[in-house]
Amino acid sequence: MSGNTFGKLFTVTTFGESHGPALGAIVDGCPPGMPLCEEDLQHDLDRRRPGTSRHTTQRREPDQVRILSGVFEGVTTGTPIGLLIENTDQRSKDYGKIKDQFRPAHADYTYHHKYGVRDYRGGGRSSARETAMRVAAGAIAKKYLAAQGIQVRGYMSQLGDIAIELRDWEAVDSNPFFCPDPDKLPELEAYMDQLRRDQDSVGARVTVVAEGLPPGLGEPIFDRLDAELAHGLMSINAVKGVEFGDGFGVVTQRGSEHRDEMTPEGFLSNHAGGVLGGISSGQTLIAHLALKPTSSITIPGRSIDVHGNPVEVVTKGRHDPCVGIRATPIAEAMMALTLMDHLLRHRAQNLDVEVSTPRLR
Amino acid sequence: MSGNTFGKLFTVTTFGESHGPALGAIVDGCPPGMPLCEEDLQHDLDRRRPGTSRHTTQRREPDQVRILSGVFEGVTTGTPIGLLIENTDQRSKDYGKIKDQFRPAHADYTYHHKYGVRDYRGGGRSSARETAMRVAAGAIAKKYLAAQGIQVRGYMSQLGDIAIELRDWEAVDSNPFFCPDPDKLPELEAYMDQLRRDQDSVGARVTVVAEGLPPGLGEPIFDRLDAELAHGLMSINAVKGVEFGDGFGVVTQRGSEHRDEMTPEGFLSNHAGGVLGGISSGQTLIAHLALKPTSSITIPGRSIDVHGNPVEVVTKGRHDPCVGIRATPIAEAMMALTLMDHLLRHRAQNLDVEVSTPRLR
Amino acid sequence: MSGNTFGKLFTVTTFGESHGPALGAIVDGCPPGMPLCEEDLQHDLDRRRPGTSRHTTQRREPDQVRILSGVFEGVTTGTPIGLLIENTDQRSKDYGKIKDQFRPAHADYTYHHKYGVRDYRGGGRSSARETAMRVAAGAIAKKYLAAQGIQVRGYMSQLGDIAIELRDWEAVDSNPFFCPDPDKLPELEAYMDQLRRDQDSVGARVTVVAEGLPPGLGEPIFDRLDAELAHGLMSINAVKGVEFGDGFGVVTQRGSEHRDEMTPEGFLSNHAGGVLGGISSGQTLIAHLALKPTSSITIPGRSIDVHGNPVEVVTKGRHDPCVGIRATPIAEAMMALTLMDHLLRHRAQNLDVEVSTPRLR
Amino acid sequence: MSGNTFGKLFTVTTFGESHGPALGAIVDGCPPGMPLCEEDLQHDLDRRRPGTSRHTTQRREPDQVRILSGVFEGVTTGTPIGLLIENTDQRSKDYGKIKDQFRPAHADYTYHHKYGVRDYRGGGRSSARETAMRVAAGAIAKKYLAAQGIQVRGYMSQLGDIAIELRDWEAVDSNPFFCPDPDKLPELEAYMDQLRRDQDSVGARVTVVAEGLPPGLGEPIFDRLDAELAHGLMSINAVKGVEFGDGFGVVTQRGSEHRDEMTPEGFLSNHAGGVLGGISSGQTLIAHLALKPTSSITIPGRSIDVHGNPVEVVTKGRHDPCVGIRATPIAEAMMALTLMDHLLRHRAQNLDVEVSTPRLR
Repeated sequence: MSGNTFGKLFTVTTFGESHGPALGAIVDGCPPGMPLCEEDLQHDLDRRRPGTSRHTTQRREPDQVRILSGVFEGVTTGTPIGLLIENTDQRSKDYGKIKDQFRPAHADYTYHHKYGVRDYRGGGRSSARETAMRVAAGAIAKKYLAAQGIQVRGYMSQLGDIAIELRDWEAVDSNPFFCPDPDKLPELEAYMDQLRRDQDSVGARVTVVAEGLPPGLGEPIFDRLDAELAHGLMSINAVKGVEFGDGFGVVTQRGSEHRDEMTPEGFLSNHAGGVLGGISSGQTLIAHLALKPTSSITIPGRSIDVHGNPVEVVTKGRHDPCVGIRATPIAEAMMALTLMDHLLRHRAQNLDVEVSTPRLR
Repeated sequence: MSGNTFGKLFTVTTFGESHGPALGAIVDGCPPGMPLCEEDLQHDLDRRRPGTSRHTTQRREPDQVRILSGVFEGVTTGTPIGLLIENTDQRSKDYGKIKDQFRPAHADYTYHHKYGVRDYRGGGRSSARETAMRVAAGAIAKKYLAAQGIQVRGYMSQLGDIAIELRDWEAVDSNPFFCPDPDKLPELEAYMDQLRRDQDSVGARVTVVAEGLPPGLGEPIFDRLDAELAHGLMSINAVKGVEFGDGFGVVTQRGSEHRDEMTPEGFLSNHAGGVLGGISSGQTLIAHLALKPTSSITIPGRSIDVHGNPVEVVTKGRHDPCVGIRATPIAEAMMALTLMDHLLRHRAQNLDVEVSTPRLR
Repeated sequence: MSGNTFGKLFTVTTFGESHGPALGAIVDGCPPGMPLCEEDLQHDLDRRRPGTSRHTTQRREPDQVRILSGVFEGVTTGTPIGLLIENTDQRSKDYGKIKDQFRPAHADYTYHHKYGVRDYRGGGRSSARETAMRVAAGAIAKKYLAAQGIQVRGYMSQLGDIAIELRDWEAVDSNPFFCPDPDKLPELEAYMDQLRRDQDSVGARVTVVAEGLPPGLGEPIFDRLDAELAHGLMSINAVKGVEFGDGFGVVTQRGSEHRDEMTPEGFLSNHAGGVLGGISSGQTLIAHLALKPTSSITIPGRSIDVHGNPVEVVTKGRHDPCVGIRATPIAEAMMALTLMDHLLRHRAQNLDVEVSTPRLR
Repeated sequence: MSGNTFGKLFTVTTFGESHGPALGAIVDGCPPGMPLCEEDLQHDLDRRRPGTSRHTTQRREPDQVRILSGVFEGVTTGTPIGLLIENTDQRSKDYGKIKDQFRPAHADYTYHHKYGVRDYRGGGRSSARETAMRVAAGAIAKKYLAAQGIQVRGYMSQLGDIAIELRDWEAVDSNPFFCPDPDKLPELEAYMDQLRRDQDSVGARVTVVAEGLPPGLGEPIFDRLDAELAHGLMSINAVKGVEFGDGFGVVTQRGSEHRDEMTPEGFLSNHAGGVLGGISSGQTLIAHLALKPTSSITIPGRSIDVHGNPVEVVTKGRHDPCVGIRATPIAEAMMALTLMDHLLRHRAQNLDVEVSTPRLR
């Protein structure tokens, strides 16, 4: 398959460039009979939308999504769901300068070598704008999963040097950072203000979890649940690392410490992050992502142009000083899409499985 | 697709349980006309094979692979390559005790809930023994890539608390740890001996790199090169984290520090690990994996049985005290398989692309 | 994969209901650098469009297609191509009556049992209107193939009892029947006029051919070229049979008659229809399709409603008395899409193959 | 995906050349908990096996299949099922002569141009011997389907000019022709004897049906049930045409005749062959296949060699004078594999669908 489809049974195929006329997606394989309307998708799109605080890019896109098919009289029909967002705030004149230059740490150089041609306006297809469609599609998956008692949500767990602990899920959506610890907000605000003064950017760490999962999701040996989640999460712009549970912390752990012992009352710990042998255990599924600092900064950088000549690049325009800030809804979407696909795949093969063994949490 | 196939154009489908009669694989999509014989596969199989030092499991399997099709008069024919390894050292009586118990941190509990039945002998399909077939298939990919000037190799970069630096590629295959720093060997030996006395296990970090890659491999937006590598590497038993280049280190980096500037002489750094926008840049591709400590240890652990009753589990048998030790050839295989698949996918779409821009390293 | 994607490397995913707001498609995997504009697609869309003669449905849709992505400064960029056609002439009130009834020979009954809900307006997703997107996508494939010297075209080879021979390719596009024999036109006109007076419909046979194919396309053993063409052609509404070359005629042939002997000057016959062992031979590729008579006729028919009660169904509205009449551009599109996909698949694996043996026609 | 895998959820991947060491397959996605043993597969393998009457090739292969994985303590475990048949009667010396020649109507010429190299012994991968693995895998699907009340079976419906009607299902397995009309046997015997005297071969028509299907199987719009069946059936060696229900007969039908009217007591006819809009209707599914005459005959034929020189080819060796004779179990297998895959795909998406409308037959 070409690279713009995600999933096997519940699939999302997307199109669209940053400064083209529109972004779109086709969601195929959605079970019929689920109530669905545009507002269901708009909620997460608004969470991802730029321009909602001074800490994100000031590009203003209403990101108004239309459902063009697959929903009839308020419920899904089982046929493919067509989604469309028109691009309204394009300002392509801002980007003309970089036509022949490769911005460092961007995809300009690699797209050029891969395809020979590229839509240089705003990064074209490699722009983070593309993620709007992931969020719209993910909202459909989230809604179906929620009806099964499965909740997917995320938060920023580190911004630069500032580690953030999960103190209050309620707080996450009430600040522009998706920060789950209200006490950290002043520090985050100050940090971002300084960053802007420095005209620089910074990395971040985002955590996504799913609760209420049944044991059994995941298709060993190659399509393990964690392997496919890693695929989905690593496919998000700027992500450089993905880990589950204790993640890279396991390197220094001993087996006697790492193993999550079980009692009839439940698991005694969750170092594994909810996956054993590539299959969900029923514990909370926990993934962490590392996002690199925004590549678009106004500090001049050395590069070359398409002719191989040295150039100095200064990236103007409106950019997020930390791409990680708006990444939480996107990470949630990719987790929801992966879980949805695996829910369908699991029941296809294992519909008749019945075990009397109790399920632990 | 079901979960036992990896790749889109160059595909590997495997079967086999730890204590069944045989392991096998079908490698489909291999270009015709490549010289290939069983010795080409055996080399990496022998590197992965257990029982070659006192630091790995003493299970002794010759792991002798047979090529059953797809090769004629010494060259590949383009038809599927059937591979088979007979299991010889099965000793299934060792495992009878765990029939009704779930070993902590193993896949017993999750396989039971997913499938209702499981081959409990030696972990069945969830055993690391399955990885032999990945290594055999990976050797085919490695050979093709090598002929294109692409070299895939790996090493252990950390064992428990002992960080290891890449000092000497030559050293890697001359010690049982795949350790690239000969000076570290006494420390590693001592560490492992202590671990065995403690009857415990430990985690590890493995690094895999590819050199000689052309720019352009990877299929945005979902099948980015790093996303598919993450899929492949995370699908290896015991892997809990995957990162590229500076990986989780990017969280605290600034954009001005992270971006790899370019000059006509080449990239000035490689924080990105050889991937930009999900496409290979032509720099060295660098991935790191975190492997959890072996779950099979003789220290008793709490668990439940299939009826939900509490039990105390002691895992006997022959086990690696650090699964990371033998993981290097497996990680190389998964990287090689992914690159091979992407080489074919890239040229399918972009065969006619010609750019005059020089390629940087 | 869900069922609304066609192809492996050059893929088309479509959405849209007959009376929904729009139809759309995403074409992924198109090689970059090909000149492409909306007019390229519009030509075939206009050939398929209803309402152009009195022998097809009088529904009037301009079927104006928009390219929303994947094309920049007049050439394809290698990123997914988003296509959209707004539905303008919907008249959904015409169809309200059949909400709870199953029209005989339609998909009403089967969609109802499969999905539980269905968009009953104009057949919803099962309407032949869906094929507009196949034609638009097929035009992209046709253009690429043409640049490789491969020409795909078709014609009506039988209407009811009237067999039609290929006399003049030029004539095909100058009459509403895609009839390649101008002398047959009066007979066809008279036949259709009588059919309309009878308020009945009739079947047809359509032939599609590709010339200029290289030998080598097709991926045995399951994805043979003829097998995948059969898949694509049989997926067109109303098609009940597909055959290659002499097709069902081979049943009574002897081996000495059927085999296409070869001489240095070329093949001596083409009973095989251009495929041997599932791989193109370089001869003209020939496929024939059988299309059933339109199910929507005004002669009352017996059926049941959703409650299982008997009803009499009269299908009003605007319908083609012979769906086969407009099927030629659709069949061409499915052949072009299949060939395009196989061209890419073939060169991915077999790029380096060189043989000195001459190619025969 | 490469071309040697069939299915999406219930997948079969095969390998093996006619004169290589073995044939094998991996069946992935089989539901767990189904009793399965080698005898279940052997039954159909024996039905397909050559050498059981004087009317088929005298090559003698025991075709003894081994199950190498995926079955434990007599039931499937949900993990991939590895299958292996060793080739025992290879006699490769018979085939040395054709090393540099292209036999007319064989795949020699096309494999040569596609791959550059080919295993010329007995046709290599293009030999009908490959179908043994389809039959073995199909037997697994058949067993699962049977437990759901779905029965797949076939028969020869025409041999050369001799049309055969379905008179007695019981008779099919009691004669070497899979002929359902015992009265026709003397005529068939005489016909075949004459054919052998003529040293020629002849085509055949085979019919396959499935009874007991629920309505709802099939995934529009591209993966319609009939489209995927056409794919699977057309992928069988020598098949040149596939049709459903009245097939090519619909070309001359009128809509008022073709449509299968419904009453509360059931459908009044089955012109459609059990599929409406690409979805099973619950009626008997009926497919017909056209198989070309065996290409290997001893009557000399004109051809060229790999250097382009004219040669006269005489195909010696042991061959079926009518490949259609042994095709029935293969066609059943491909239908069973397709239905099995669609059963799983359907329930993945539509598990929760409930309709009160009665199901018709």
